[in-house]
Amino acid sequence: MLDQLLKPEIRELIFSEKYDELQEALEVFEPAEVAALIEDLAEEEAATVFAALSPTLGPQVFEHLPHKDQSALVEELADDTELLSGLLNDISPDDRTAFLEELPPSAVQQLLGFLDPEEREIAERLLGYAEDSIGRLVTTDYIALQPEWTVEEAFRQIRRFGRDSETINVIYVVDEYGRLIDDIRIRDLILAEPEQTVRSLMDNRFIALRVTDDQEEAVNSFRRYDRAVLPVVDAAGTLVGIVTHDDMLDVADEEATEDIQKLGGSEALDEPYMSTPLFTLVKKRARWLVVLFLGEMLTATAMGYFETEIARAVVLAMFVPLIISSGGNSGSQAASLIIRALAIGEVGLRDWWRVMRRELLSGLWLGVILGAVGFLRITIWAAAFGMYGPHWLLVAFVVSLSLVGVVLWGGLSGSMLPLLLKRIGADPAVSSAPFVATLVDVTGLIIYFTMASAVLSGTLL
Amino acid sequence: MLDQLLKPEIRELIFSEKYDELQEALEVFEPAEVAALIEDLAEEEAATVFAALSPTLGPQVFEHLPHKDQSALVEELADDTELLSGLLNDISPDDRTAFLEELPPSAVQQLLGFLDPEEREIAERLLGYAEDSIGRLVTTDYIALQPEWTVEEAFRQIRRFGRDSETINVIYVVDEYGRLIDDIRIRDLILAEPEQTVRSLMDNRFIALRVTDDQEEAVNSFRRYDRAVLPVVDAAGTLVGIVTHDDMLDVADEEATEDIQKLGGSEALDEPYMSTPLFTLVKKRARWLVVLFLGEMLTATAMGYFETEIARAVVLAMFVPLIISSGGNSGSQAASLIIRALAIGEVGLRDWWRVMRRELLSGLWLGVILGAVGFLRITIWAAAFGMYGPHWLLVAFVVSLSLVGVVLWGGLSGSMLPLLLKRIGADPAVSSAPFVATLVDVTGLIIYFTMASAVLSGTLL
Repeated sequence: MLDQLLKPEIRELIFSEKYDELQEALEVFEPAEVAALIEDLAEEEAATVFAALSPTLGPQVFEHLPHKDQSALVEELADDTELLSGLLNDISPDDRTAFLEELPPSAVQQLLGFLDPEEREIAERLLGYAEDSIGRLVTTDYIALQPEWTVEEAFRQIRRFGRDSETINVIYVVDEYGRLIDDIRIRDLILAEPEQTVRSLMDNRFIALRVTDDQEEAVNSFRRYDRAVLPVVDAAGTLVGIVTHDDMLDVADEEATEDIQKLGGSEALDEPYMSTPLFTLVKKRARWLVVLFLGEMLTATAMGYFETEIARAVVLAMFVPLIISSGGNSGSQAASLIIRALAIGEVGLRDWWRVMRRELLSGLWLGVILGAVGFLRITIWAAAFGMYGPHWLLVAFVVSLSLVGVVLWGGLSGSMLPLLLKRIGADPAVSSAPFVATLVDVTGLIIYFTMASAVLSGTLL
Repeated sequence: MLDQLLKPEIRELIFSEKYDELQEALEVFEPAEVAALIEDLAEEEAATVFAALSPTLGPQVFEHLPHKDQSALVEELADDTELLSGLLNDISPDDRTAFLEELPPSAVQQLLGFLDPEEREIAERLLGYAEDSIGRLVTTDYIALQPEWTVEEAFRQIRRFGRDSETINVIYVVDEYGRLIDDIRIRDLILAEPEQTVRSLMDNRFIALRVTDDQEEAVNSFRRYDRAVLPVVDAAGTLVGIVTHDDMLDVADEEATEDIQKLGGSEALDEPYMSTPLFTLVKKRARWLVVLFLGEMLTATAMGYFETEIARAVVLAMFVPLIISSGGNSGSQAASLIIRALAIGEVGLRDWWRVMRRELLSGLWLGVILGAVGFLRITIWAAAFGMYGPHWLLVAFVVSLSLVGVVLWGGLSGSMLPLLLKRIGADPAVSSAPFVATLVDVTGLIIYFTMASAVLSGTLL
């Protein structure tokens, strides 16, 4: 890795101010590798190295930097207006949007001032689309042809704009109003005769995304059609730009990260764990932890309600953690399975009844299995150590039956809650697992003690 | 959507056996859409529709079918050896591997018999790579050039093999031994003069994956370098094939699905939730549920150990669920954050000390917050309803201090366990969250009752 092997050498070149040699040394590496090196440097050094990069490599390296380092760099370079203007004009429109959208409005205004009129118009238009919409990921670096052009003219266009285009695997055909009417693969152009028209290669079949579509919806289109690039159109069908696979991988990663964090019972961090400030980390976790704590307080209320039973038969208290945690585990299994299936699109709202039937059956099975293990445990301990008093068999029954009920109930609520959340338009992942655990804890106690009252009344109670 | 709109019409064409019209009707749709239609049909109908597809569309549609439907289709088509042989020879090598690797060895042998010698050699070689290695995702449909060729000769090669190639955005250059020596973008070829040599376009800089690399490692390369395609080489540097972005999106999705399912405390399902047989679903969930149940039994042992304390002060039992669940929630927050950060590569083993320091600090804060809320709750209930007896203030202290300890301990073990699992070479995601919850439940009880014994001895105890 460049950042490990070459750091002393690079630092040497910085200190001795050999910027030409530095440029040459870095030119042979991948933008991502140079970015990793710059990330590891102190801010001032980072700016020096960045300023030494060639005008081609610089913007590419910038695109690979985390936002924090991008901001620091732009601040350091504030005085070098020429470099800054070159950089902001040359980075891909989608990466520029990603950089600008995180900045305060005043900084955005200031930086937009560095752009050429044309780039500025593009930047402002893309920033105008809603957050989390496809528009924010659009790049305008694509090639568009007109149907009446010949293949030879098409290649002239490709030679002219191909250098900047993000992809030339697919080329787009637009009509006189800029409306998208087809996509053509470069291989078909290469295989065609120079004098053929573009129209003769068209099949008028194409897939396009809407600029206002949700980014997560767009990932589903990429999942479905296995494309590297998809064109993006507005409501009138005008070609606005393209979206590429790398952004979709990022969106899919982010989607999964958010779901995992929410499933774990915190808010989505929105930043890498390590670079989240401690205060933010505590805040994002504390909020849900307190909500769940307030919910769990109901367990104390429930336990208080059964205080006399516990006082009379302390043995009942002993199995409380076992029973409620089993319900919680069963619930978090079901919740995580359904939340992921919803996210990937494997399960939809219309499947609720089939999901419920599956969870009823599997919950029953799982409950019976745990109930049997629990029954065995109590029987063995009673026989071997004489524990749980003379009525141990009844206790074993109460515990086993409660386990069946609690595990079944855990699976049912764990699977139905995410569907319910989705139904009312909320995010199914939001703290479902711990929320289900809390719900099941409270209801589990009620199931357990009600069962105990019924079975043990007259003996232990 | 085709499957909704056209089903009656398609069915009409099937019943009237108008196969030519059927072929024509389906030709205008995307392979993914035809696949979705076939999925919805009964097995026999599906085979009829599939057999009517053109030889170009058929393999593409097959690649978009779920494995279950692929198998059913191949079984239905078993008698039509010509169709079957055409299909198996024409699907992309990577999709063929994905289809074959799920079948029993005898079926694989039988199907390999349908392949031409060349395709058979490729199929056997790809199946020879380890499961979950990059080799299983490799396709051999790429274009390779030799450095001494001219650009004109290069285009001749592209015209010849470009039709089958998965991408021609990037073309590979190999030496006389087939070793990869460079990658060239098609745009550079288009911009070059016909008589230039390929060598004159080379910069000898390229990124390649090893065929034995883990698939999840490979996704990290795609994440890092933002490429649509990466070449794959063997230990000798020979070009084995290419891997494309769509497979990487699948791997990233699968990776996240597995982690979410494991975090939720089941084994990874490996199949969509809805198509997992109920028995498998129960088995994959029961295993961990029982393991966790056995672990949670220690809570009964711990509670048994404190039986006298509970009998003397039943009020203590009331807060047991509240305290252990708070520890569990804090633990599952930390575990999910760290597991995802590990998966995405944001956190590595070398960061353990920084993670621990963060978790110590945030755990302390979170504990203090919950402790304060708990203290308030007990104070208010004691003042308003006269609950928790004359020593309620001491009880409030015990509960609050225990909360600080348990929440802190939950965060610490939740963050350290995944790192520890990774350190010993195990999967950090494996049931970390519920395992942490179980660990924290048991230790939480010990913290709580030890604290109670210390503070309440002489008053309540």
